[in-house]
Amino acid sequence: MNHQPRLAGVTTGPIEGSRKIYASPPERPDIAVPFREVALDPAAGEAAIRLYDTSGPYTDPAAHIDLDAGLAPVRAPWLAGRGLRAATARPVRPEDNNATGDRLVPPCPAERTVRIGEPGRPVTQLEYARAGIVTEEMIYVAHRENLGRAAMTEGARERRADGEDFGAALPDFVTPEFVREEIARGRAIIPANINHPELEPVIIGRNFLVKVNANIGNSAVTSTAAEEVEKLVWAVRWGADTVMDLSTGRNIHNIRGWILRNSPVPIGTVPIYQALEKVGGEPEKLTWEIFRDTLIEQAEQGVDYFTIHAGVRLRYIPLTAKRVTGIVSRGGSIMARWCLSHHRESFLYEHFEEICDIMRAYDVSFSLGDGLRPGSIADANDAAQFAELETLGELTQIAWRKGCQVMIEGPGHVPMHKIKVNMDKQLAECGEAPFYTLGPLTTDIAPGYDHITSAIGAAMIGWFGTAMLCYVTPKEHLGLPNRDDVKTGVITYRIAAHAADLAKGHPAARLRDDALSRARFSFRWQDQFNLSLDPDTARLFHDETLPKEAHKTAHFCSMCGPKFCSMQITQDLRAEAERLAGLEAQSAAFREAGGALYVEAGD
Amino acid sequence: MNHQPRLAGVTTGPIEGSRKIYASPPERPDIAVPFREVALDPAAGEAAIRLYDTSGPYTDPAAHIDLDAGLAPVRAPWLAGRGLRAATARPVRPEDNNATGDRLVPPCPAERTVRIGEPGRPVTQLEYARAGIVTEEMIYVAHRENLGRAAMTEGARERRADGEDFGAALPDFVTPEFVREEIARGRAIIPANINHPELEPVIIGRNFLVKVNANIGNSAVTSTAAEEVEKLVWAVRWGADTVMDLSTGRNIHNIRGWILRNSPVPIGTVPIYQALEKVGGEPEKLTWEIFRDTLIEQAEQGVDYFTIHAGVRLRYIPLTAKRVTGIVSRGGSIMARWCLSHHRESFLYEHFEEICDIMRAYDVSFSLGDGLRPGSIADANDAAQFAELETLGELTQIAWRKGCQVMIEGPGHVPMHKIKVNMDKQLAECGEAPFYTLGPLTTDIAPGYDHITSAIGAAMIGWFGTAMLCYVTPKEHLGLPNRDDVKTGVITYRIAAHAADLAKGHPAARLRDDALSRARFSFRWQDQFNLSLDPDTARLFHDETLPKEAHKTAHFCSMCGPKFCSMQITQDLRAEAERLAGLEAQSAAFREAGGALYVEAGD
Repeated sequence: MNHQPRLAGVTTGPIEGSRKIYASPPERPDIAVPFREVALDPAAGEAAIRLYDTSGPYTDPAAHIDLDAGLAPVRAPWLAGRGLRAATARPVRPEDNNATGDRLVPPCPAERTVRIGEPGRPVTQLEYARAGIVTEEMIYVAHRENLGRAAMTEGARERRADGEDFGAALPDFVTPEFVREEIARGRAIIPANINHPELEPVIIGRNFLVKVNANIGNSAVTSTAAEEVEKLVWAVRWGADTVMDLSTGRNIHNIRGWILRNSPVPIGTVPIYQALEKVGGEPEKLTWEIFRDTLIEQAEQGVDYFTIHAGVRLRYIPLTAKRVTGIVSRGGSIMARWCLSHHRESFLYEHFEEICDIMRAYDVSFSLGDGLRPGSIADANDAAQFAELETLGELTQIAWRKGCQVMIEGPGHVPMHKIKVNMDKQLAECGEAPFYTLGPLTTDIAPGYDHITSAIGAAMIGWFGTAMLCYVTPKEHLGLPNRDDVKTGVITYRIAAHAADLAKGHPAARLRDDALSRARFSFRWQDQFNLSLDPDTARLFHDETLPKEAHKTAHFCSMCGPKFCSMQITQDLRAEAERLAGLEAQSAAFREAGGALYVEAGD
Repeated sequence: MNHQPRLAGVTTGPIEGSRKIYASPPERPDIAVPFREVALDPAAGEAAIRLYDTSGPYTDPAAHIDLDAGLAPVRAPWLAGRGLRAATARPVRPEDNNATGDRLVPPCPAERTVRIGEPGRPVTQLEYARAGIVTEEMIYVAHRENLGRAAMTEGARERRADGEDFGAALPDFVTPEFVREEIARGRAIIPANINHPELEPVIIGRNFLVKVNANIGNSAVTSTAAEEVEKLVWAVRWGADTVMDLSTGRNIHNIRGWILRNSPVPIGTVPIYQALEKVGGEPEKLTWEIFRDTLIEQAEQGVDYFTIHAGVRLRYIPLTAKRVTGIVSRGGSIMARWCLSHHRESFLYEHFEEICDIMRAYDVSFSLGDGLRPGSIADANDAAQFAELETLGELTQIAWRKGCQVMIEGPGHVPMHKIKVNMDKQLAECGEAPFYTLGPLTTDIAPGYDHITSAIGAAMIGWFGTAMLCYVTPKEHLGLPNRDDVKTGVITYRIAAHAADLAKGHPAARLRDDALSRARFSFRWQDQFNLSLDPDTARLFHDETLPKEAHKTAHFCSMCGPKFCSMQITQDLRAEAERLAGLEAQSAAFREAGGALYVEAGD
């Protein structure tokens, strides 16, 4: 095969107003954890703000990006010492891509040795955690999560109290040992396939920062490999913690190869989608053998988590018959069709232990799919949905017994008053395994704005305890998200996740809000832009009304104009410090005297 | 004065996919209440859906729109019988517009007789309600709120149960008498200045549909009268229930005239803004006399509610000194500056009873301003904010005693876990007077997306009991909203309000969700678009991927493509009705037998 053409360029360069830094945990100077740092105006007299950074080497000007070669395999030295066996890779078959000639997307030429875990020694992060072994991945995520906490050690207790965490156990400081304990008890996962050495590990669990997933993927209708890799890079640039490749149609195998070799974040898939392509799109023709082979194919490539809809049992399907929107999950409807056609129990359910054995051998995490999630407000929290959830709880126990990491997918469309019971029931049924929800959308009436209908539900369920939020873009229900939609979806969900962290009382969450608000109040416009989730848009919106560079230091903005700024007035008030000090004393005296002492000037 | 040039055209014509209708309450065939009706595809076999309609005559093809003449004074016949006195209008003074020559925006030529209430007989809706008299406005809003309830009388009780209303008392059916009772006890208001005869009355209260306010207004930096009227028309087109004119700078008086004569919705203002213009923008120079004169000026024009920051008392100002963002309310900071400069109690507080007397004479409703609302997450729910809220409760009692209608403004920036206490405290302190909140924004870190950070808080506080939500646009903190921003803000807040209605268990709220979801599930794309909050955007997004007209009836969409549609698969499942029926019987038997009877096919 000739040298493959390089994919079209992806977006690189620092996010405006910040620089990439790497920091190492004290105990492991060889581990470099990425952050973004926002330096503030010297006038602020404040330290730079360190931000969690999902963007990978693409925002590092020093990194050499070569999509053909893939990202540097940062985990390779860690994996090298774990007794993993080099496996003979499963040969690529024509049906893996279902495309020939000009229609075939060439494979990513980056070469990696395929590895597989041996029986009898730990492979998964869960197995290591249970064995009392702290992995490099655990050390990495502990350092990554600690972001900013050191700077506020003193106030930590006070900050902690300012939140309602609904029984979560947010630590003041995340240690590798805390990470190990959380993983060992199944409350957190690090999705990290041993064949994805390019991964920058991330932890998903109720006692860590709330994470965000972005879906990408081509479909039968449109899209190319180049577009998908750029969507990945674009999604992580704006803050996606994991990315699901939901491709259907042609070239699934090769597009996934390009994505995995170039992904710094965990990649999830729904293997049944590819299996269905292999049988010509007819669910009836699916077999356990084809599905099993697809799992191995994808596990060898390095997929970090699989959505497995093993909770869609034959007996639950009739429960959906009277729904307003039936079964809306693609995986759920495929399995329902299969079950009904054959009038047999789901092969995913029947072969669940074998699925566990395969996934354990590569440390692919389970994302137990909610194939019967409600697709409308009318169907929320119904018998079908909760029956499946109970089965997911049963399957969680099996997967744990087999050594697999597990998270649980959740709805869907749920009105606000029915959200909390979803979280409570998930915690109870699934032994506190991390919850991973799509939204939920809190109304059905706003197609075109479902990033917003769902951000409301996502923020709430994140507060209640959901560990990762699957984004929804403005195109939901209507079309395929483009580049702008992906960005809008990710930023919207970063808002929901951060609002949840604040409400839970995450020890470091408020640092960024406070720094931005101080900048806002001090008219440090550049600092305000740079600290925001989307500096480019913030600056653009400001410049639409006040484009001049001088306005970036102006002590007013376009809302009120120069004469009328409330912020300026309050600043002036502060300048009257002496008078205020006197007033404060008066006010204190007033309060001490129960209010009667203070004589109103006008009376 | 010569004939004034007509303002540039405003947006007219029906909202895509719906038609304007008018319906009359059975007891009053002379009262025509506007709605929008969405006719569904005949294949649906469903009745047309009736929607609440804020858009005024602008979406009625039969209406003759003439901005010079103003809208038809629909309330004139009702007001005629109420013993109101024709007053000699206060002459317009140069400082009312603070502009001359070319810079002067000409006044709206529409002529209206200025009326004023007589002492000793009812003027305000509150006074009528207390006197046991049901006004036309009460009949109007009762019919308007009942929207769709008749169609679901049977299921009403069941629907009601499906919600958590936190102690609200949503009736199964809104009667004029229920409206009267709610107004009499201060739990709801109909902002309806007797000098705003063009108004289509709207009710604001916890036991009615959650309302949305949009802010418009020019500023010292930019904007013209034509733009502001179009913003009004544009805002009500997409669903604003009330509009606040927050103009500052020049031509405040004349721009407000154009807005009022052409507004079908209640118009609110913050009179201190104009008063400040009259004293050259220097808060120290404000006097009670100038403020008093401004109240009369605006009341005569027909403003329906005034924000009055009378809760910003001298003694509370020091409580803001250590805040991260001090005082961020414009009105609050103006009054704080005045109080400190003179070291005197606020003239708004001291003259509150006189303010009541003026507002009562025109039935201008109070919107008691939260001048000390938090401007950042750090400042939420602090001593300053809650001290002011307690004073607003005290002022509510005074205003009620004076016969005035009252609502209470609320924050601001509040993290999710601190939202509910705001609602609870407001209800307790202010005797259940309607709460009217700005957002609240649930994080500070997303300038450019604050419609979303605040929609999360708005939906939640709306659910908890807030009666009206003040929108926030994407330009918040950054610049002046343009036309697109106004639409985005209104649609976003309609989402929040509707999500709140659903969660409260509003008897008719789910009708639209269910109709849209049925349309979605049946691939009735046109119906789905037409039932959505923004049909234009929904259609546009769909057509970006699948532009052909044939795709509007396609049984698939671009997300999955023709072979892979979960909706289609489920529909096919339903078609297998006989088999399903058999399965259902089996499933029922299984459930009855406690689960043990059902033998899995694969075992």
